[in-house]
Amino acid sequence: MSARPRGSRRGGAGGSRRSSAKAGGGGATRRARRVFFFGAGRADGRAALREVLGGKGANLAEMTRLGIPVPPGFTLSTAVAEDFTKARGRIPHAVVTDAKKALARVEKIMGARFGDPDRPLLLSVRSGAPISMPGMMDTVLNLGLGDASIDALARIAGRRFAYDSYRRFIQMYGDVVLGVPHERFEASLESVRDERGVQLDTELGADDLSRVAEKYLEIVRQHTGADFPQDPQEQLWGAIGAVFRSWKNERAVRYRQLHGIPDSVGTAVNVQAMVFGNMGEGCATGVAFTRDPSTGEKVFFGEYLENAQGEDVVAGIRTPQPINEACRPPGTEELPSLERQMPRVYRELERIAGRLERHYRDMQDLEFTIQQDRLWILQTRTGKRSARAAVQIAVDLAKERRIRRDEAVCRVEPAQLDRLLHPTLDPEAERDVIATGLPASPGAAVGSAVFSAEVAEARHKAGEPVILVRLETSPDDIHGMHAAEGVLTARGGMTSHAAVVARGMGKPCVAGCGDIRVDAVKRELAVGGRVFREGDAITLDGGTGEVIAGRLPMVTPQLGGAFQELMRWADRLRRLGVRTNADTPHDAEVARDFGAEGIGLCRTEHMFFEPARLLAVRELILATSSEQRRQALAKLQPVQRGDFAGIFRAMDGLPVTIRLLDPPLHEFLPHEEAEIRDVAAALDIGVAEVRVQVDAMRESNPMLGLRGCRLGITFPEIYEMQVRAIVEAAVLVAEEGIRVRPEIMIPLVAHREELSRLRALVEREAKRVSGGSRAFRLHVGTMIEVPRAALTADAIAECADFFSFGTNDLTQMTYALSRDDAARFLPEYLEAGVLDSDPFVSIDEDGIGALVEIAVERGRKTRPRLKLGLCGEHGGDPQSIDFCHRVGLDYVSCSPYRVPIARLAAAQAAVRRR
Amino acid sequence: MSARPRGSRRGGAGGSRRSSAKAGGGGATRRARRVFFFGAGRADGRAALREVLGGKGANLAEMTRLGIPVPPGFTLSTAVAEDFTKARGRIPHAVVTDAKKALARVEKIMGARFGDPDRPLLLSVRSGAPISMPGMMDTVLNLGLGDASIDALARIAGRRFAYDSYRRFIQMYGDVVLGVPHERFEASLESVRDERGVQLDTELGADDLSRVAEKYLEIVRQHTGADFPQDPQEQLWGAIGAVFRSWKNERAVRYRQLHGIPDSVGTAVNVQAMVFGNMGEGCATGVAFTRDPSTGEKVFFGEYLENAQGEDVVAGIRTPQPINEACRPPGTEELPSLERQMPRVYRELERIAGRLERHYRDMQDLEFTIQQDRLWILQTRTGKRSARAAVQIAVDLAKERRIRRDEAVCRVEPAQLDRLLHPTLDPEAERDVIATGLPASPGAAVGSAVFSAEVAEARHKAGEPVILVRLETSPDDIHGMHAAEGVLTARGGMTSHAAVVARGMGKPCVAGCGDIRVDAVKRELAVGGRVFREGDAITLDGGTGEVIAGRLPMVTPQLGGAFQELMRWADRLRRLGVRTNADTPHDAEVARDFGAEGIGLCRTEHMFFEPARLLAVRELILATSSEQRRQALAKLQPVQRGDFAGIFRAMDGLPVTIRLLDPPLHEFLPHEEAEIRDVAAALDIGVAEVRVQVDAMRESNPMLGLRGCRLGITFPEIYEMQVRAIVEAAVLVAEEGIRVRPEIMIPLVAHREELSRLRALVEREAKRVSGGSRAFRLHVGTMIEVPRAALTADAIAECADFFSFGTNDLTQMTYALSRDDAARFLPEYLEAGVLDSDPFVSIDEDGIGALVEIAVERGRKTRPRLKLGLCGEHGGDPQSIDFCHRVGLDYVSCSPYRVPIARLAAAQAAVRRR
Repeated sequence: MSARPRGSRRGGAGGSRRSSAKAGGGGATRRARRVFFFGAGRADGRAALREVLGGKGANLAEMTRLGIPVPPGFTLSTAVAEDFTKARGRIPHAVVTDAKKALARVEKIMGARFGDPDRPLLLSVRSGAPISMPGMMDTVLNLGLGDASIDALARIAGRRFAYDSYRRFIQMYGDVVLGVPHERFEASLESVRDERGVQLDTELGADDLSRVAEKYLEIVRQHTGADFPQDPQEQLWGAIGAVFRSWKNERAVRYRQLHGIPDSVGTAVNVQAMVFGNMGEGCATGVAFTRDPSTGEKVFFGEYLENAQGEDVVAGIRTPQPINEACRPPGTEELPSLERQMPRVYRELERIAGRLERHYRDMQDLEFTIQQDRLWILQTRTGKRSARAAVQIAVDLAKERRIRRDEAVCRVEPAQLDRLLHPTLDPEAERDVIATGLPASPGAAVGSAVFSAEVAEARHKAGEPVILVRLETSPDDIHGMHAAEGVLTARGGMTSHAAVVARGMGKPCVAGCGDIRVDAVKRELAVGGRVFREGDAITLDGGTGEVIAGRLPMVTPQLGGAFQELMRWADRLRRLGVRTNADTPHDAEVARDFGAEGIGLCRTEHMFFEPARLLAVRELILATSSEQRRQALAKLQPVQRGDFAGIFRAMDGLPVTIRLLDPPLHEFLPHEEAEIRDVAAALDIGVAEVRVQVDAMRESNPMLGLRGCRLGITFPEIYEMQVRAIVEAAVLVAEEGIRVRPEIMIPLVAHREELSRLRALVEREAKRVSGGSRAFRLHVGTMIEVPRAALTADAIAECADFFSFGTNDLTQMTYALSRDDAARFLPEYLEAGVLDSDPFVSIDEDGIGALVEIAVERGRKTRPRLKLGLCGEHGGDPQSIDFCHRVGLDYVSCSPYRVPIARLAAAQAAVRRR
Repeated sequence: MSARPRGSRRGGAGGSRRSSAKAGGGGATRRARRVFFFGAGRADGRAALREVLGGKGANLAEMTRLGIPVPPGFTLSTAVAEDFTKARGRIPHAVVTDAKKALARVEKIMGARFGDPDRPLLLSVRSGAPISMPGMMDTVLNLGLGDASIDALARIAGRRFAYDSYRRFIQMYGDVVLGVPHERFEASLESVRDERGVQLDTELGADDLSRVAEKYLEIVRQHTGADFPQDPQEQLWGAIGAVFRSWKNERAVRYRQLHGIPDSVGTAVNVQAMVFGNMGEGCATGVAFTRDPSTGEKVFFGEYLENAQGEDVVAGIRTPQPINEACRPPGTEELPSLERQMPRVYRELERIAGRLERHYRDMQDLEFTIQQDRLWILQTRTGKRSARAAVQIAVDLAKERRIRRDEAVCRVEPAQLDRLLHPTLDPEAERDVIATGLPASPGAAVGSAVFSAEVAEARHKAGEPVILVRLETSPDDIHGMHAAEGVLTARGGMTSHAAVVARGMGKPCVAGCGDIRVDAVKRELAVGGRVFREGDAITLDGGTGEVIAGRLPMVTPQLGGAFQELMRWADRLRRLGVRTNADTPHDAEVARDFGAEGIGLCRTEHMFFEPARLLAVRELILATSSEQRRQALAKLQPVQRGDFAGIFRAMDGLPVTIRLLDPPLHEFLPHEEAEIRDVAAALDIGVAEVRVQVDAMRESNPMLGLRGCRLGITFPEIYEMQVRAIVEAAVLVAEEGIRVRPEIMIPLVAHREELSRLRALVEREAKRVSGGSRAFRLHVGTMIEVPRAALTADAIAECADFFSFGTNDLTQMTYALSRDDAARFLPEYLEAGVLDSDPFVSIDEDGIGALVEIAVERGRKTRPRLKLGLCGEHGGDPQSIDFCHRVGLDYVSCSPYRVPIARLAAAQAAVRRR
């Protein structure tokens, strides 16, 4: 027990962290509490102190307060990590003193003493950051064992268990704290197995393990030049220091970079009494989810291993058993479930899981250990889940009235939806199934097999989709998993590293596929007499666990009821409209099915690029007389009219924003010698003449050259033709009884006068064609994609019914950053941290965003009801959508498959900002 | 007399023009006065009513009030022009009534009546816009003559004069009002001369001229199908209408476009009693300047023709006589001067000229007529002058205490100075003088002879300097004169069209070069047996009137005392600093002599382009190992150090801003096949390898690619070398006792982090080299040339000692306008009026200017004493300099020859804005 009774603790918190004030007092009146005890229903901390205690520590405290059977212990707060760093690796004396007091309370609860030769208490030391970083930092288990206490442990739990624990502890401590290479211990263990002629560690007896422990102690001596520390206190503080240090190890740093976690959050350290799932009969350890993390189904879901420590489950070395019959995966019929084997413990576990889920109001991921028929909960946290599960769980929790609908909408990461929306494997396609593993993360992936993270990364960078195939994955494979379309492992269960990480990334994963043989050195995978080498195509079905030879065709997914429900809720919450970028009737239909409320960007140039039309386009550009030009336009106009008519039909009742021709004409011209010859022949002009013209139209900086509205002003025939085609199509389709809402958008406007003149051109041609038809109203607006346009938006708004921010080009110009050329330095900039993020992925709020804000303000000053949208890739990026909501745009426009993402992101922005 | 006595006029002005209120009452209480009488010392108008009366009308009124002998008349205000346009060519009834009343007063003063068969009054009708447009609009003289009054005129002034006046009137009226082609009258006149066997019109007698008049009447009848109007009132209103209409004739519209005069200002019309310089003995007409318009010398200066009308002087058909001995040009010794011929009249003219100059406080350009020994002043206006004269006159007037010094500073158009500052003909060079004409406009011009305005324009556009050679020039030649380096005419005096216009444009002109024969059809000029054809090189010396064969070399001009004085005054007035853009010690010295207060932009890449160094630069870029790169840098560093040392020495005590390498590396690479081979050989690498590297470095939009600070971040070795070279040079030169003020400028910064890292690089290298030397302080700042940098100037200012706005690139990016590519549409944009002006000439205040303002505000918010400059071509443009003053920059930096222009423009900005 602490020297100070609980009642005397008064708000002595004076630390720098905001939540320190809530810590309920510290060890002294001057300093914030740094050591937080928990155990036997009492805890200094609680869930709200996540920043101070880390996620794990806060949860252990909270669970303890809830009366959950948690092994007692104490948490060194993240402030200690700061102290530790500042003091260059030393723990402040006051912390040591407080920790000893807390340890004494633990000893009392457990009825054992740390380092006691009769009843030794063993401890675990684990990291626990405020933001979960699974498996990234170091852990030391079985602390407190030593030559002095090993016999006592043998008495209590059997010799085999004692020496097995000891050799595990020496190896882990040697590796993590003393820096002895892992492999040296493993080689030594292997030599003992070989001597005994056995294959598995479980086949080794107590004497063997005792010998292993002795060999291990010798390895430590050889490597460090000193004896393995036998003093439990020395062991304890060595391990604590190592865990604090592991915050800065390479894979933790990399993980934080990948997930955007700042270095400054720091980690807490949890010291906790060990409980053992590997003491033999009646012992087990496992992981459970309160709902199915793949499907989201309300099924208590989990795996366990009998007579094992938790690391055995996570490492995926043995195939685990299902905790109940409901969650049993196919092909595991012979494995007994916890529900059947230990029904009392199972019921207690199920009851605790339900309690935790209700308490935390979200699906939980529990770690438990059963030591001699007694259940201990080691950890609970919000469970990672697939996109599909995220949607299902959010909707179910709302329906169960555990959370509000707006909370449900905010529970799904919009980017996750990407996986749900993209095509899946065609169910009709014939499948050459070569093996079946566990369906560890849903979705389908097609790519070339690769056998290392490095190759995965390299081939991915070269634009090749790859499938990472590994015996099992480890944190060192993270970058390869990021690069891969999907992951296949030969070992590991539904909660193995590969499965957990892949689900977090939203990538398909087939795990524990025992039939395949993976040879990372030969770079091949063998199964049923067939061999697949690096680069050979394979397909994974993460929903069934099937591994299929070759590349299977894909089909559009059927979205479930939960998805539709969540989207309906999102639509009710959001203020931003969501349109789509679509150039064809097909894209328009797909987007409309996904909930698009109009077309925000229909690029007419894509129509020009179609091979069948390109000749007429080239004829138009290379025309030497206005007569020739008119002829070429006469060929194009009916074709364009057909394009537009199709789109208008698909978008009946919804607005369609059509951008007039934008790219430099040079892009349409032939460049290869052979192409030039073909064009010259087809157009009946000289090859030399074509070449001269093509050369003459080459530009130093085409991005800043003759394109967009500049074409409209210098070659008005093209825009005139396009306007006629649009209006003719509108008249035609309106006559079919369809409601047409055309909006003509002028690109690359930099000066009011450009828009003013082209608006006049549009209105003149429209009137000429429609004869003043009242079947539809034509709006005319402009892209805001040139910085000057944003700066002079007040003047430009005088001639515009709407603005559409073209933030792709606006970013290029405002940042002086050509997307085509940025590859030579942008990756280096991101790598070196010169830029935090790629401004083409999420809008650069400080720069480009500031310009958008200026344009919004100035544009609305002139025309308060000016309609404002954003088209381009930022329109499908949740972070950019939040920005659009904040600055008051009316809609975003994105690619069809991102429409639901945008709807959800827009709803979340509205919830966050209300 | 007007029906309302003067005393009863009370502020009845209700017109829309602001100054109408000052008009001193109108013809009725409800309407502003539209008809303004002047004569016999009384006038309704005055100088301040320029907007209402036009320049000429306001001056005639003002002169009348001053007691100057001005022929009486009245002015129809610019408001009548508006009425006229609105009523589609009809004059309001009230105006006609008022005009008739004014005419009655004129008749009374002149003792003659309009259309009277006994004592006919003749009138002139002339345009007069608020802004002078010399010779651009139509004029009709001798109005009122007709078959009924011709005999009376003959009685009074002689038959020859009467018929000469009549035929002139019919021709002018026929041409201007009735649209009869000019040539038809001339052909008819020629036929009479031929019949009579004479060459000059003066040789024709009264009978001949009577016959000419009759033939002219017949021509009018044939062309119009109606008799020539004999009713004087019909003549008067016809002429007034024609003059109003001539506001919109092609050459007037073009002139306004060239001079930026809005169409809306409109013109007034002046109706005035005719006085005659062509009534025989004791008659003359002339033009005078109160000071020499070429040199500015305080000499009464002018020309006249005996027995002639004003149009004869302006047209330059006869070589005119000097008004006095002091202004007599060389080679006119045989011509009598007015001073000698009519000393009384001359003295009166001189006295009036002095009075007018004192009244208007500027050099005046007078038109006068002597009718039978009586002097009449027809017009006075501020005289056009050469740049040299502008400076001299401004300084002299200030010294004479006629104007203040700040006024003197504002009297010189900064752009005019360009001519004074640029090199002139080398006086040592041998001159092959082929002819000598009048030194009509100073300066030297070298170019290819061309014989039409069209060819002048075409060759100029193709980049060829041309000299326009004409018999005489007319308003139709204006565009050719704009395109030409200089003008040479065979006919015309110092006040001929060519001379006046060329001086206004600041172009050299040799006029009235009678020795040369100009054949516009054959396109050649013949002189002394030599023939120069289109394209042959000639040189003009506008200071001596010499025409020289071939291209003469040029030398830097010696600037006179007046110039230096004016510059001193300007320097005392201005707030903006003026620096120069200089890349070599020579340029630095030239600029310092011109008053530069430092270097605002030293571009290091120009040093890299020197042929002798280019190989090392290419070696650097193509290096495949860091060892090779280091070797190349080791070659460049001492050379760069030498460059900087020379510049530091030249700028002793003044700041020198050095920009680190900016352009894309690709610009330094060889592109031609042969060049690639040479480089490969010199560097001992394979040709194919060089080609691959060169291709790999090609960019789609190099302007937005890997350049500027991006080079500094991705290839730090280059910037490190440059910093070392700068600091080593600074240490070296400081040891010589010279004061060194180096400022290192980082280009193309878009993000604070770029500058932050490169600033650290600069400081690290500087410290390494200087060892912390205190001999100088190194400033580090950045270009603001990327829109994002301007938008985030608050963040960037955290790492910058100074900002220098690079408005060339800032314009390109903000306007999405590549200078290299703009030629394909920018001229068309300017021609069609989409843009008012070229944003690369004067800063676009609405767009780029708005961005600069944002950056100034945000930068100074972070760092109130942040030094702010502008480098690039806008730094030498007066309009842009005014902008820089207004937004509070500290300095501008421009090319050496524009430094005085910038000093003057900065002073004028300060005067205007105080």
